[in-house]
Amino acid sequence: MQIISSSTIQSWERFYRANFINSLTGFKSVSLIGTINKNGRPNLGVFSSVVHIGSDPALVGYINRPIQAAPHTFANIQSTGVYTINHVHPFFLEQAHQTSAKYPEEVSEFDEVGLIPEFLDGIPAPFVKESRVKYALSLEEIIPIKLNNTFLVIGKIKEVKLEENIVLKDGFLELDKASSLCSNGIDGYYTTQLIDRYRYAKPGAKTEKIKI
Amino acid sequence: MQIISSSTIQSWERFYRANFINSLTGFKSVSLIGTINKNGRPNLGVFSSVVHIGSDPALVGYINRPIQAAPHTFANIQSTGVYTINHVHPFFLEQAHQTSAKYPEEVSEFDEVGLIPEFLDGIPAPFVKESRVKYALSLEEIIPIKLNNTFLVIGKIKEVKLEENIVLKDGFLELDKASSLCSNGIDGYYTTQLIDRYRYAKPGAKTEKIKI
Repeated sequence: MQIISSSTIQSWERFYRANFINSLTGFKSVSLIGTINKNGRPNLGVFSSVVHIGSDPALVGYINRPIQAAPHTFANIQSTGVYTINHVHPFFLEQAHQTSAKYPEEVSEFDEVGLIPEFLDGIPAPFVKESRVKYALSLEEIIPIKLNNTFLVIGKIKEVKLEENIVLKDGFLELDKASSLCSNGIDGYYTTQLIDRYRYAKPGAKTEKIKI
Repeated sequence: MQIISSSTIQSWERFYRANFINSLTGFKSVSLIGTINKNGRPNLGVFSSVVHIGSDPALVGYINRPIQAAPHTFANIQSTGVYTINHVHPFFLEQAHQTSAKYPEEVSEFDEVGLIPEFLDGIPAPFVKESRVKYALSLEEIIPIKLNNTFLVIGKIKEVKLEENIVLKDGFLELDKASSLCSNGIDGYYTTQLIDRYRYAKPGAKTEKIKI
């Protein structure tokens, strides 16, 4: 095995380093975040930094890059306080990736890439109609990360829309059956296959699989 | 499709809600975090909340639950300032899951579950010898999330140890070839299969696959 020091990492060409470091942290979700700007124009962007913060209350975070690098989603969330997170599936993966292009603010990525905005009562942010697992959030807190000028954006879940047949009787969602994708690095997308679920572990007890 | 409101979510039994909300955010990495306590006793715990913060400098975060729920890893990181993050592979998945049991502080999870601690020069925190992709971090900042008493723990990458044959010439890591796993919910573990990588997207240009 190879050992790589922090000074070697620092010496790398920036795209090589970005590919390497973005892969090193492992697989991650891939989601489209839907917002509207103050004029009601829909915006859609692909994010791979969604992180579970807590279940009670139901809080979800994501890391927003420095403002100049990802301005529209962040500005819209600050302005409206509402946004949606939508899972990505293979049949619209290319469109999802294409939302990462730097479109001007007056352009809707939905129109540009060919995805359909869907609005639910009382939620002034667009969902992705094609997505099988999606939820709306109200902004709770933006925490600046001063180390590199990024932000942890935390929202509370307001409403969920999803395919009923993926919800197991204990609340677990069969995301592989929904064909939700995961990602690696900046640009790699993957399907998944369940190995097993394991019961709550206890000291001295054998690790047991869950059968549902 | 089914629509679920926040008040319905709030009304659920807590384990059902935890399973549902932990799945809703999508697939995530699964990693073992290795630390030592102030007496040099190794500790190992499984975490699924690792999140990429930035590549230059190379910063990695994870969400630590309220202190009473996950005390040893957090206390050890605060005390020593150093920790390791280790990918999980199928051949030691049961052992990795078993580290989530609440062992007393004087017990080493390495011994209890049967994984081998590995030390590299200058890094006073144990790696998992069996892991094919692993890295050490120095603590940079602990950011309290007051909304639910959790913490965003951010470290800077000090050193990486990994299998050379998974590093592509542009720095991307073939984590599926390394058999790194991903997770869903509290207790589901998955293998992955690459669909494609896509080039940096540009407005008006066709979405293109990367061939390496």
